[in-house]
Amino acid sequence: MAKIGIADTTFARVDMASFAIEVIRKNSKAKIERYTVPGFKDLPVACKILIEKYKCDIVMALGMAGKAAIDKQCAHEASLGLQQAQLMANRHILEVFVHTDEAKTEKELYSIAKNRSEKHALNALGLLKSKTALTKYAGRGRRQGKNDEGPIRRK
Amino acid sequence: MAKIGIADTTFARVDMASFAIEVIRKNSKAKIERYTVPGFKDLPVACKILIEKYKCDIVMALGMAGKAAIDKQCAHEASLGLQQAQLMANRHILEVFVHTDEAKTEKELYSIAKNRSEKHALNALGLLKSKTALTKYAGRGRRQGKNDEGPIRRK
Amino acid sequence: MAKIGIADTTFARVDMASFAIEVIRKNSKAKIERYTVPGFKDLPVACKILIEKYKCDIVMALGMAGKAAIDKQCAHEASLGLQQAQLMANRHILEVFVHTDEAKTEKELYSIAKNRSEKHALNALGLLKSKTALTKYAGRGRRQGKNDEGPIRRK
Amino acid sequence: MAKIGIADTTFARVDMASFAIEVIRKNSKAKIERYTVPGFKDLPVACKILIEKYKCDIVMALGMAGKAAIDKQCAHEASLGLQQAQLMANRHILEVFVHTDEAKTEKELYSIAKNRSEKHALNALGLLKSKTALTKYAGRGRRQGKNDEGPIRRK
Amino acid sequence: MAKIGIADTTFARVDMASFAIEVIRKNSKAKIERYTVPGFKDLPVACKILIEKYKCDIVMALGMAGKAAIDKQCAHEASLGLQQAQLMANRHILEVFVHTDEAKTEKELYSIAKNRSEKHALNALGLLKSKTALTKYAGRGRRQGKNDEGPIRRK
Repeated sequence: MAKIGIADTTFARVDMASFAIEVIRKNSKAKIERYTVPGFKDLPVACKILIEKYKCDIVMALGMAGKAAIDKQCAHEASLGLQQAQLMANRHILEVFVHTDEAKTEKELYSIAKNRSEKHALNALGLLKSKTALTKYAGRGRRQGKNDEGPIRRK
Repeated sequence: MAKIGIADTTFARVDMASFAIEVIRKNSKAKIERYTVPGFKDLPVACKILIEKYKCDIVMALGMAGKAAIDKQCAHEASLGLQQAQLMANRHILEVFVHTDEAKTEKELYSIAKNRSEKHALNALGLLKSKTALTKYAGRGRRQGKNDEGPIRRK
Repeated sequence: MAKIGIADTTFARVDMASFAIEVIRKNSKAKIERYTVPGFKDLPVACKILIEKYKCDIVMALGMAGKAAIDKQCAHEASLGLQQAQLMANRHILEVFVHTDEAKTEKELYSIAKNRSEKHALNALGLLKSKTALTKYAGRGRRQGKNDEGPIRRK
Repeated sequence: MAKIGIADTTFARVDMASFAIEVIRKNSKAKIERYTVPGFKDLPVACKILIEKYKCDIVMALGMAGKAAIDKQCAHEASLGLQQAQLMANRHILEVFVHTDEAKTEKELYSIAKNRSEKHALNALGLLKSKTALTKYAGRGRRQGKNDEGPIRRK
Repeated sequence: MAKIGIADTTFARVDMASFAIEVIRKNSKAKIERYTVPGFKDLPVACKILIEKYKCDIVMALGMAGKAAIDKQCAHEASLGLQQAQLMANRHILEVFVHTDEAKTEKELYSIAKNRSEKHALNALGLLKSKTALTKYAGRGRRQGKNDEGPIRRK
């Protein structure tokens, strides 16, 4: 049976994990392992531990970044850590980050965080199925956190 | 028989893989393995898996980046991941990324994506052949996605 | 018995380690290993040595960054080193960095350094306990060095 | 007998390899292995393969970067890849990159490319000889691609 | 008997190694291994070789960066390489870099280079002694290349 890791933070201002978990439970029988860390820079090693020690087949890394320049830099460092963690563990870690300045209001921020977490939970289930499960959507301009942009021109 | 990996995304707004696959089929008997992921940050580990698990000899990583500053940063992170993946797997992964702001119209963007995918498919076939298959073009100002710039001065 | 590494610098203008150590001693029986280096770029390898040679279960990396552009860049390099060190050693290294320009006065800087060191010492103890010890605070907008921002909307 | 790898690109607008090869042939009996790739982001893995598979003792990575912001970023990614490749393979890879905006005319660009390739070919021969072969020039402000700046003050 | 590696460059305009070596000879009986490379991007692998092949216990990486934007970027790449080299070799490599724009005159630049090299040579000796040899200076605002800033407030 598949096992999905959910790594999240106490820094985020929305409980993104709850959205992802609900989608996974509704659409699969996968087992869920959760790991909560202080901030998103603590996510990469947590995700790697979820894969290597807790035997997760795929992991979602949920985080929220502030709007200051230093926050952007920290998100960049965390992202690079997630890249490296995936390559060392040979598994996907879906980066589900929300940047505070993507939204104009707290309500919009909440809604982006929910939408992105839910859509990426479905992506995780797709990747778990097979390497071509998402191929039907290839080049179709899909977005998480907002509406799809769609393809430029159908073949 | 050679095996070429094609990793692409659901984020891109053009089905770049179709162009690359057509060129490969026309010009070689190589077997193709496709792997579709949500966004370009998911490409590096997918490419590494294509090499290590699916035994691809070379991989093309096809992606499209938005025009916001955060999109540039994400492309940078994906690129660094691709660098690392190549060094860990000791195989070429051709980065075939299109940046939305390279084009003024959707039509031009489509055309860049097509041209770049096709030319890099030929590059992949060249690299598969031998380490000096492309030497006849060394220093000749070749470009993908637009016209060649050509050499500054012939020797 | 758990072992906590405390890596700090002679560059910092506040003895951040003393705050962290006091909190750890008050709240646990963990053994402490200290390692002092010149600047924060010397922290990553020191932290890795604390884990691998001194068998620390978790490490706190305490540092302070100046306000010049080059200082920001150095902090970025140190942060990337800490990411890599964690992934190589499979243990958490909590980055507890203070940026000089976070504060307007020396007194405020001192207070941020103290608060951040103390709160992250508690985070270290939480992470040591279990991967879900902090889950009750997930998505709650917790901050170190200043007051919590709190959650946007309770579920 | 020493073996020198020469990795170059079809993207560059000058055949930098020819200059390096001529200097090496004139000044040593080293065997040369060439590897031509599309762009400089393909150089790191090519250089690593030259060392590990083709047993080169040292490698020169010859490339040319455009003047757009994205070109600078790509050069940065290639440079980081070259750093990593050297550390994984424990051999020097001399980065011989020319940035288009270093020169005002095509003629000047050609001349920088030639001068830099030739001087670094001599550097490669020096490094091959011993770790102190270049020590007589330490701190002497040597430059490649333009005239030396020289030392600030002789000891 | 301890062994200290000194890696330096022909690019630098001051013979920084001579200052470091003099301090080491005056204050210890450590053996010194020198390695001179063209520029600071060649330092990381040289330092790793000093540790792994020449069995150095600690290494000083001495370099000087120009003032152009590309010089800053190169220094950044070299710094990241030094981070990685330390983590792979599990030894300290003290980065002793001087940026040309730190000084207004050549005389001042010379003096910064001398002071920084000398102070970091003493730091190297401290780190060689034990992981707490520098703890008495922790949080004391020590600087290399200029005067100490000192602690903000004594405990």
